Amino acid sequence: MSTSAAQQPSPQLFFQTINAHQRTEALKAAIELEVFTAIGEGNTTAAQIAKRCQASERGMRILCDYLTIMEMLTKKGDEYRLTLDSATFLDKRSPAYLGGATEFLCSPMLTEGSKHIAEAVRKGGTAMEGEGTIGPDHPVWVKFARGMAPMMAMPARLIAKLVDPNGDKKLKILDIAAGHGLYGIAFASNNPQAEVTALDWAAVLEVAKENAQKAGVADRYSTIPGNAFDVEFGSGYDLVLLTNFLHHFDRPTNETLLRKVHDALADGGRAVTLEFVPNEDRVTPPDAAGFSMMMLTGTPSGDAYTFSELERMFANTGFSRSTLYPLPPTIQQVVISEK
Amino acid sequence: MSTSAAQQPSPQLFFQTINAHQRTEALKAAIELEVFTAIGEGNTTAAQIAKRCQASERGMRILCDYLTIMEMLTKKGDEYRLTLDSATFLDKRSPAYLGGATEFLCSPMLTEGSKHIAEAVRKGGTAMEGEGTIGPDHPVWVKFARGMAPMMAMPARLIAKLVDPNGDKKLKILDIAAGHGLYGIAFASNNPQAEVTALDWAAVLEVAKENAQKAGVADRYSTIPGNAFDVEFGSGYDLVLLTNFLHHFDRPTNETLLRKVHDALADGGRAVTLEFVPNEDRVTPPDAAGFSMMMLTGTPSGDAYTFSELERMFANTGFSRSTLYPLPPTIQQVVISEK
Repeated sequence: MSTSAAQQPSPQLFFQTINAHQRTEALKAAIELEVFTAIGEGNTTAAQIAKRCQASERGMRILCDYLTIMEMLTKKGDEYRLTLDSATFLDKRSPAYLGGATEFLCSPMLTEGSKHIAEAVRKGGTAMEGEGTIGPDHPVWVKFARGMAPMMAMPARLIAKLVDPNGDKKLKILDIAAGHGLYGIAFASNNPQAEVTALDWAAVLEVAKENAQKAGVADRYSTIPGNAFDVEFGSGYDLVLLTNFLHHFDRPTNETLLRKVHDALADGGRAVTLEFVPNEDRVTPPDAAGFSMMMLTGTPSGDAYTFSELERMFANTGFSRSTLYPLPPTIQQVVISEK
Repeated sequence: MSTSAAQQPSPQLFFQTINAHQRTEALKAAIELEVFTAIGEGNTTAAQIAKRCQASERGMRILCDYLTIMEMLTKKGDEYRLTLDSATFLDKRSPAYLGGATEFLCSPMLTEGSKHIAEAVRKGGTAMEGEGTIGPDHPVWVKFARGMAPMMAMPARLIAKLVDPNGDKKLKILDIAAGHGLYGIAFASNNPQAEVTALDWAAVLEVAKENAQKAGVADRYSTIPGNAFDVEFGSGYDLVLLTNFLHHFDRPTNETLLRKVHDALADGGRAVTLEFVPNEDRVTPPDAAGFSMMMLTGTPSGDAYTFSELERMFANTGFSRSTLYPLPPTIQQVVISEK
């Protein structure tokens, strides 16, 4: 162990990391207590916020200070204010409110896996029984569909604009593992001639159908309930959407699916994949690269695939060319693969 | 909700925070699997590290990438290396190895509290039964004494040098809640005429006595087993050490103790307090300020006190003057209060 004179080792990162779980719990508590909503309503001191949230002033002062340290609030004197992010995503009155996403992101099925990381590393896949989150008809996906929708509207619109910028030609679209349905629905909203077929577990499709109704595209929206690996897709699709789906599976499994996708596409059709795509070094950018850990602990053999890995899967299954597109301001990327 | 053109709201911080618990679990898993030690021994690829740690290569690759993202490793090509911090604190072969501290820091008694933050905020104190971690003779303090000692040697030496720079005069020292004993022991090592009396629960004092033995100061080391609020301190002390103790209690309780400390000091004696001391804004510096949350969730009424609060407690109990000293590179500060 060599220590240069200029550098001093510090246990700070160790402590911050060993206590990082407290950040998760503090955010969950603040959402549960409606702290962000209370501040958005105009309560700014610990005493006012505590009264609105039916909590103690002392506890609220410590929580709000902690949220300030986490950069989810600002503090001036003894007054707390929302940041732009917390006003947008954590005040219940905001249309982009994400509080509901915690039900999915903090569901035991998702967090249980991360309590057994050592075991997952030994095994090379989830330490949970069965297939983890990808088990058939897992109820977590209804929570996903309901909780994650508010934050999906923006990326969904961005993808529709990227793939179908003019929105003026007949399009037959298959939305695989549609979830909340917002991706397919964005294409339908963007193009009055687009017809969308959404595929997911039956219980999840109920959420997608509600969202199609709300978006006024229900007359161009149909569904196929079941498992994407088993059901018939139909054929002649101009687009097949694969949003946040491939990361759950290993490469051979994905290639089995992609062959089926290739068959279902019309000539000149395109597969549109939304994914966390780390750079080839697998450690940048941090959010996309770090997603691998969630797949290790939550699935038998899923991963965050690099573009070269995705490209190879598509090439192996008959696609002629894949192109990578960033999707700012999201941390995800889009791969468009041509038949 | 107003959004300036220059600023875009992003859910990134929300996601990072809601998943922060994964960082804690990944670090715990890496320590359990001895990943840092394996790399320190010269295993650098995922395959080599996996073999040494009896784990799968795929799991190890994902874990090491995640540790790289967390800045606890570096990666070049497919080779991982330790950082200065991880070589110092996370390789089992290092004298400053902190892996043992996880037993204390991740003990259910410490982490259980943070699972009930909302309840603690409502109540204004720990949601755990009884008195939380400050209950009598709580076994967590033996884990503390054993696990935290390796990282205490350095701050202990710094304090001894700060308070007794020449180390050449007779000193009678009382070390309250001595734990591992390293603070008092550092004074004894620094000054051959220093005599230390360590006070803590009997089981904890066994650890302190072992450490005094190892440091070769056992002949100037005596102990008082019991609760600092109940036992007799004796009198005529030149120094009373209060290291990481006051944050467990509320101000009136601390003042009761400080009166007793004042009585036990000789004329001209000094109380030496080591604490997490946030600035008056209570949100900076982040590590010291954030410590409040641990006291909210783990104790009935503890806190990270600002200097003005500490100063007032000492003034109210008869001390003439308190002075604050930083203790770089630690994140803590020292308050010296004169009788």
